[in-house]
Amino acid sequence: MRTTGDTRQRIVSAATELFRRQGYSATGMKQIVATAGAPYGSAYHFFPGGKAQLGEEVVRTSGAAYLELIGELFVPGRDLVDATGEAFLGAAGTLRELDFADPCPIATVALEVASTHEGLRLATAEVFDSWTAALAAYYAASGLPEGVARETAVSVIALLEGAFMLGRAARDTGPVEAAAKAARWIVRGAVLSGSAEGGAGRSA
Amino acid sequence: MRTTGDTRQRIVSAATELFRRQGYSATGMKQIVATAGAPYGSAYHFFPGGKAQLGEEVVRTSGAAYLELIGELFVPGRDLVDATGEAFLGAAGTLRELDFADPCPIATVALEVASTHEGLRLATAEVFDSWTAALAAYYAASGLPEGVARETAVSVIALLEGAFMLGRAARDTGPVEAAAKAARWIVRGAVLSGSAEGGAGRSA
Repeated sequence: MRTTGDTRQRIVSAATELFRRQGYSATGMKQIVATAGAPYGSAYHFFPGGKAQLGEEVVRTSGAAYLELIGELFVPGRDLVDATGEAFLGAAGTLRELDFADPCPIATVALEVASTHEGLRLATAEVFDSWTAALAAYYAASGLPEGVARETAVSVIALLEGAFMLGRAARDTGPVEAAAKAARWIVRGAVLSGSAEGGAGRSA
Repeated sequence: MRTTGDTRQRIVSAATELFRRQGYSATGMKQIVATAGAPYGSAYHFFPGGKAQLGEEVVRTSGAAYLELIGELFVPGRDLVDATGEAFLGAAGTLRELDFADPCPIATVALEVASTHEGLRLATAEVFDSWTAALAAYYAASGLPEGVARETAVSVIALLEGAFMLGRAARDTGPVEAAAKAARWIVRGAVLSGSAEGGAGRSA
C-alpha cells in the first residue's frame, strides 16, 4: 500500500523531472499531480503554499542531492585537475542519458525566477552557494589559496551550467566535452596562479 | 506619427525585455502588447504564428545583435587573453546595469524550450553556433589551431552564460568577475596546448 510519504515524494520527484525538461513557468500543479499519479487535492494538502512552495522544495532537495554528488566526485587526495575534467566527462554522459533534459535540476528555474520570485531566487542562490563552497573546500584542501579556490569553484560550476545550456540547445554532448578540457585549463591556471603567490605548496 | 514598422519593432523589443527578466513561458502576448503600447490584435497581425513565431524572431534578432558585439570586442590583432578577460569584465558591468536581468537575451528561452519546442530550440542552437563560430574565427586568426579555437570559443561562451546564471541568482557580479579570470586561464591553456601541437606560432 502506498503511504502518505510516498505520495508527497512522488509529487516532488514528478515536479523535479518536469522542471528539468520544461522549466518552472510551463509546469502546472495539474500536470505535476497527473505525472505523479496523485489525486489533485494532494498537491495543495502537502504544499499549501502552492507551486512556489513545491518549487522551493524541489530546488533544496535537488541541491542537497547534488551536494552529495560533489562530495563523491571530488575526494581529497585525488588530483584536482583530473577530478575536475572527469566530472565534466561524466556530466556529458548524464546529459545523453537524460535525452538532453537538464542534468542540473535547478538551472532553468534559476534563470526563470531570478528577477520575479524572490523566495525561489534565494533558494537557487543558496544551492549554488552550497555547491561552490563544497568544491572550493576541496580545491583549498588540494592546495589552492582560499580566495583562488573559491573563484575557481564558482567558475567551474558556471562553466558546467553553461555547457549544459549549449549542449541542450544543440542536442549534442560536444559542448560539455569541450568544457571538460577548459575546466582542466581553469584549474591548472588556478594552481599556477596559486604557486606564483606561494600558496599552492600542498597541490596534489 | 508612429508607423507600422514602429509597432512591429516595439513588440519585438518588449518581448526581448520580458524574456530577459521572466523567460518565455511566463510571458503572454497580452503582456507583450501592453508593454509595447500596441493594440492587442497587432501582435497576431504581425506574428500570425503567435508567441512561437515572435519568440523565434526575438532569438534571431538578439542573436544577430550579439554577433555584432562579438565582432566589436574581439578585433584581430588584440591579445586574445586580454580581449577575452575584458569582455567578461564588460559583461559584469552590463549585468549590474540591467539590474540582474539576463544580459543574454536567449539564455532563459534556450533552457525552457530545449526539450519542448523544436523550432525554438533550433533557433537558439543556430544563434549559439553563430557566436561560437565568430569567436572561434577570431581565436584561429590569433594563432590557435582550428579545432582548439572552436572548443575554446564554445567553452568561453558557456562560461559566460553560466556566470550570468550564478550572478543573477546571487544578485552579485562576483561570479562574472571570477569567470573573467577563469576565461583568461582557458585561453592561455588553449594557447599553450596549441603551441605544444606546433600550431600557435602566430599567437598574438
